[in-house]
Amino acid sequence: MKRQVIREPFDLETYASDRRAWVDRSLDSFLPKAEEPPETLHRAMRYSLFCGGKRLRALLALAGAQIAGADPAIAMPLACALECIHTFSLIHDDLPAIDNDDLRRGNPTNHKVFGEAVAILAGDALLTKAFELIQECRKTAPADAVLDVIALVSSASGTRGMVGGQVTDIECEGRADIEVSIVESIHRRKTGALLSASLTAGARLAEAPPRLMQRLGEYGRQMGLAFQITDDLLDLEGDASRMGKPVGSDLKNDKATYPKVLGIEKSRALAESAAERARAALDGLGDEAEPLRALARYMIERDV
Amino acid sequence: MKRQVIREPFDLETYASDRRAWVDRSLDSFLPKAEEPPETLHRAMRYSLFCGGKRLRALLALAGAQIAGADPAIAMPLACALECIHTFSLIHDDLPAIDNDDLRRGNPTNHKVFGEAVAILAGDALLTKAFELIQECRKTAPADAVLDVIALVSSASGTRGMVGGQVTDIECEGRADIEVSIVESIHRRKTGALLSASLTAGARLAEAPPRLMQRLGEYGRQMGLAFQITDDLLDLEGDASRMGKPVGSDLKNDKATYPKVLGIEKSRALAESAAERARAALDGLGDEAEPLRALARYMIERDV
Repeated sequence: MKRQVIREPFDLETYASDRRAWVDRSLDSFLPKAEEPPETLHRAMRYSLFCGGKRLRALLALAGAQIAGADPAIAMPLACALECIHTFSLIHDDLPAIDNDDLRRGNPTNHKVFGEAVAILAGDALLTKAFELIQECRKTAPADAVLDVIALVSSASGTRGMVGGQVTDIECEGRADIEVSIVESIHRRKTGALLSASLTAGARLAEAPPRLMQRLGEYGRQMGLAFQITDDLLDLEGDASRMGKPVGSDLKNDKATYPKVLGIEKSRALAESAAERARAALDGLGDEAEPLRALARYMIERDV
Repeated sequence: MKRQVIREPFDLETYASDRRAWVDRSLDSFLPKAEEPPETLHRAMRYSLFCGGKRLRALLALAGAQIAGADPAIAMPLACALECIHTFSLIHDDLPAIDNDDLRRGNPTNHKVFGEAVAILAGDALLTKAFELIQECRKTAPADAVLDVIALVSSASGTRGMVGGQVTDIECEGRADIEVSIVESIHRRKTGALLSASLTAGARLAEAPPRLMQRLGEYGRQMGLAFQITDDLLDLEGDASRMGKPVGSDLKNDKATYPKVLGIEKSRALAESAAERARAALDGLGDEAEPLRALARYMIERDV
């Protein structure tokens, strides 16, 4: 029962806010300048990229490298690449043909500002930029590790991961016969895969040994589950003004969510046990795992 | 004047058709099966990928590896990746928000068959798959060469290449004040960059020496120019039934094209001199350059 008596003096808020500022500075230096032509494209990419995200994937990549004993700076191009991929997916998901959302993080969505054509192409450019950035990691990590990271990230983003999950999500809208296994499969691919890959990819750059990779993989899967159930609950019960977008959009679109198939109480219990299992995967690791322990708790306690 | 007396017994038609069949078999084996879920996504990806393209980028990648002395098979995952990227760009360009085209290669465009949401996501999945495929080249090529290829291909596809060129192209629609340098810049980025990168990336996998890389880069730039001018001319003068799409769409959208700024005769002369310069870049190379010499001629003689 060792993990129950661990004190947590670790200050997640300061840690996350420092790292976010570092990620934002790095993104700014890696991305084409807004005044470089074609300006519209670069402005559109930057608009959504600097729209105030939690930078969760970037934080996980940096933490993955650090827990494997490396300077987290070696994972910074990867961290920025993951934020590019996440932002690309938000821009495309918000399009009229997909979720048709007008607001994201309190601001008009990309296509509302730049038009649909530029929004589609800005997403495409961010996805392309991501792989360009990952290959830059070879400056500080072995080439084989960088290629493993490209395999991890592309697999987590493609048909078996994020994009595939999004298609199934769309196909399940409005269906009454959804089972919990389908909701689980959508969420695991749509958000879980890339969250989990962010952490393991960071660790792989630092040449983490197989046993640590397994622990981090298990942590990532459970943390991703806790994250997504909480997302579903926030869409039902959250504060629209804090979240910067209307709540209730899952209900409106009759999405396949955990509360829809399990109810609110059971969903909350499942999120809590997933966060607990995520923390348990770190048993035996020392203080260097504190950020990940705190992040697992944050996943279910957050209000945005 | 050595190149003027070279006989050309080389049979481009048989060569290209054999290679296309090989590329198609490889693409079929690399792509997720149509019956694998989510089926709609995989069917949409395969629908546009197997819609009868010329496979020019794939042929160039294979030729690049071969001219550098390697078995062209080492470049097959790259060749298939380039066709995924090309197909992704066609699916997105055809969308209602961008070029709004209903026909492509004689068939309804992707969104006409699968709807806009799936078409957007199928394009995204193809772009992601491309980078997954390129990293597979490490089975037969050095890791550093594979990472160089990822840098080459992502740069040619992103804001400085294909996607950036497409944005400028959209922005220049309907403008009367277009200069030839703008048309050149759009075409160089929108099509030239990826065509040229296809060849040099194939050669890089085979560890081509710098001098050969320079020659192939120059060939690719000139060949890409010849290709694009011919494309513009075919849109004005081509046979719609052979091309499988309506002609005159550039005129309809008042696109920035070579014929618009130079007229037909001057455009044709420019295409011919570009093809000649492409062939000249290969001077001093032996019979192994015959496919590229024949391709340069094909670029301006083709009718589809």
